[in-house]
Amino acid sequence: MSYILRNCDFVLTLSGEDLRILRNVNVLIENGVIVEIGDVKGSGYEEIDCSGHIAMPGLVNAHTHTPMSLLRGFFDDAELPTWLNKMWSVERELTPDIIALGSELSIIEMIMSGTTAFIDMYYHPEVTAEIALKYGVRAMLGPPFMDTYVNAVQVENELRNFYVKYVHSSLIKPIVNIHSIYTVGKDTLLRAKELSEALNLPIHIHISETRDEIYESKKRYGVFPVEYLNMLGIVTNKTQLVHLGWVTNWELGLISRAGAKVIHAPTSNMKLATAGHFPMKELMSMGVTVALGTDGPASNNSLDMFREMKMAVLLQRHSYWDVGIKAIHAFRAATINGYKLLGVRGGCLDKGCVADLVLLDAGSPRLQPLRSDNLLSNIVYSADGSDVDLVMVNGKVIYEKSRDYYALKERVKIISEDLNDFIQRFL
Amino acid sequence: MSYILRNCDFVLTLSGEDLRILRNVNVLIENGVIVEIGDVKGSGYEEIDCSGHIAMPGLVNAHTHTPMSLLRGFFDDAELPTWLNKMWSVERELTPDIIALGSELSIIEMIMSGTTAFIDMYYHPEVTAEIALKYGVRAMLGPPFMDTYVNAVQVENELRNFYVKYVHSSLIKPIVNIHSIYTVGKDTLLRAKELSEALNLPIHIHISETRDEIYESKKRYGVFPVEYLNMLGIVTNKTQLVHLGWVTNWELGLISRAGAKVIHAPTSNMKLATAGHFPMKELMSMGVTVALGTDGPASNNSLDMFREMKMAVLLQRHSYWDVGIKAIHAFRAATINGYKLLGVRGGCLDKGCVADLVLLDAGSPRLQPLRSDNLLSNIVYSADGSDVDLVMVNGKVIYEKSRDYYALKERVKIISEDLNDFIQRFL
Repeated sequence: MSYILRNCDFVLTLSGEDLRILRNVNVLIENGVIVEIGDVKGSGYEEIDCSGHIAMPGLVNAHTHTPMSLLRGFFDDAELPTWLNKMWSVERELTPDIIALGSELSIIEMIMSGTTAFIDMYYHPEVTAEIALKYGVRAMLGPPFMDTYVNAVQVENELRNFYVKYVHSSLIKPIVNIHSIYTVGKDTLLRAKELSEALNLPIHIHISETRDEIYESKKRYGVFPVEYLNMLGIVTNKTQLVHLGWVTNWELGLISRAGAKVIHAPTSNMKLATAGHFPMKELMSMGVTVALGTDGPASNNSLDMFREMKMAVLLQRHSYWDVGIKAIHAFRAATINGYKLLGVRGGCLDKGCVADLVLLDAGSPRLQPLRSDNLLSNIVYSADGSDVDLVMVNGKVIYEKSRDYYALKERVKIISEDLNDFIQRFL
Repeated sequence: MSYILRNCDFVLTLSGEDLRILRNVNVLIENGVIVEIGDVKGSGYEEIDCSGHIAMPGLVNAHTHTPMSLLRGFFDDAELPTWLNKMWSVERELTPDIIALGSELSIIEMIMSGTTAFIDMYYHPEVTAEIALKYGVRAMLGPPFMDTYVNAVQVENELRNFYVKYVHSSLIKPIVNIHSIYTVGKDTLLRAKELSEALNLPIHIHISETRDEIYESKKRYGVFPVEYLNMLGIVTNKTQLVHLGWVTNWELGLISRAGAKVIHAPTSNMKLATAGHFPMKELMSMGVTVALGTDGPASNNSLDMFREMKMAVLLQRHSYWDVGIKAIHAFRAATINGYKLLGVRGGCLDKGCVADLVLLDAGSPRLQPLRSDNLLSNIVYSADGSDVDLVMVNGKVIYEKSRDYYALKERVKIISEDLNDFIQRFL
């Protein structure tokens, strides 16, 4: 299907690293790719009326645990270790059917709020992958290595099967997920690394999230967490490091030299009181690709990437006592940098970028007054997911509020009832 | 007008300080007051179908500068002193007409997102008061003393006139606004205090917001800002202190002993990188009434009190490195405590409370799965203003999404165009 977005009030995009704002332009899309943008016409295109709208790149939620919406609000007021134990007590009882319900609920929430792609760490990733395909959203995922929960051989087999099934998918990309260095032993870490090399897959891991993790790493291995990963050969340009709340400057050097990617999850870190500081300015100045994630909906408890962009700026300003981190940095992190982690040319509305995009209601009261000079500010600081009117992934319209909202809400109602039936026994 | 809210899925309220959740109940309202709640019937009442909805108290935005939506996104990436100077450069050119546009835009955003009352500090408060009355929302406001901008005699006269005009209003309450100790000299502070005593009005003041303010206070007066106010007799049970990001424990003692009220504005503090720490746990444990505010829409840049509740919990957890501040504390701050500042029995759905309330869509996807046990969590951590379907103030329906949204949006469009015409010259 080929589309023309006609007469967009604003197009907000990145050209390389630079912000670019166009007014009253058309966007041409063919075969899932943006082929032209500006004062262009096309014939034989399906029309989308873009007047009254802002077209912007889709948002990438670069770290989440999709099915965990099933545990939203279930146990909120605890610190990470206590919280994790509580989550695990329920998670041991999960079946693929229940996971499917959680994933579907989260995917609906994500597409409604303008997320076009997500990176996911959870059991039974094929369940989530199939729902992502059904809704047409992009996802990178794979079964997590976690020795405290599941045998590594089993995870390896699951991942190999997952890989075979999805390696040629346009929307689904496999990844080697490792839960953390405190739930996974050295043998498994090395096994995961070999698998990443053998299948040429990125590694995605929680690291340096809490003080306790640092303390235990130093005590057990004599080094800090990122140093430990590096000793095992796991810090490479295919590595995605999540959290980094307690990280030394020499670890930043290791990350930067290796070309590893990093993911900031500010809301989750604050909610779980892990404190610390994700050194976003230093990472950016060393050229490290910084992406953003909401973390799971049980520790956020929202999947709205608009809110996460704002949170990243706010937390960073609070930590540095200055305004060095600006709206543009959060916007890049949530768009173009997220797509770098996916290995897809996206997060941009430009010739050759994948057509993963969002139309926002330019008349939304909370975005007014709106002009080219405050467009980015208003999107990062004032917008929320409710301003999303249309979402396109890979050149296909996967959500149109006026067409889909009520049907999706009906589906959510059923999911919610089924999830509550399941949760009852843990209350 | 008397109403019956029939068949609310959930009623979320506070009974004293305690959370109370009722299911499938009716709420009876007469003459602006809640007269009964539970399994009650009434005849001769106007019916509101509350099925599929959560009824909760309206939210109080206890510190804002309403007209400043006109400067939303205008100049975002600066620290407080630079930012204030830039704001003032435009504000010197403001006319009542422009102020009216900004206030109307903000009031529309506030009522759409469930705010039933706000405390405001801005010039020409009668302009904002009239718009508040037009839209039916509750407001506490008055002209700010600010020697760097306007002569104190003029402010006193303006306040006396404002007082006479609104002292008997059911929705508008006058207040003595003082900008800060760095923009107002001792004589004016004393004049403001006398006025507060003569007219029996609360005093509302920004205090201890930045390190620089502390440093200057110590240098000029030999004492910390709250100590300085206290020396002048301005810390009393009628005082409302905003920000308190840099405050000593002995100043907390002064606040607590006096029975002064305090207001936390976490988003604005973070966005302006004032850093510091609002000591919410200590203040609460000393029995001080803590309320919440968004601050002005040019330093937030949202007026959504749902987002502000979440931000308060997150920032406090980040600062304390623990989860001591919970959803209930933010909820109390935004509801019942806000009403204490207004001097109105509200923020509760209970016999005798004013009928200032909000109906949320209980089927909103981002709130699922929803049960009594996670209702509060999901409201504080997952909801946003877009979940609001109906707002009642003083027993009158002032906003009903299905009836009013598009008309208000049309009005906002005109306001936005007019504001942009004005702003152009400063770009």
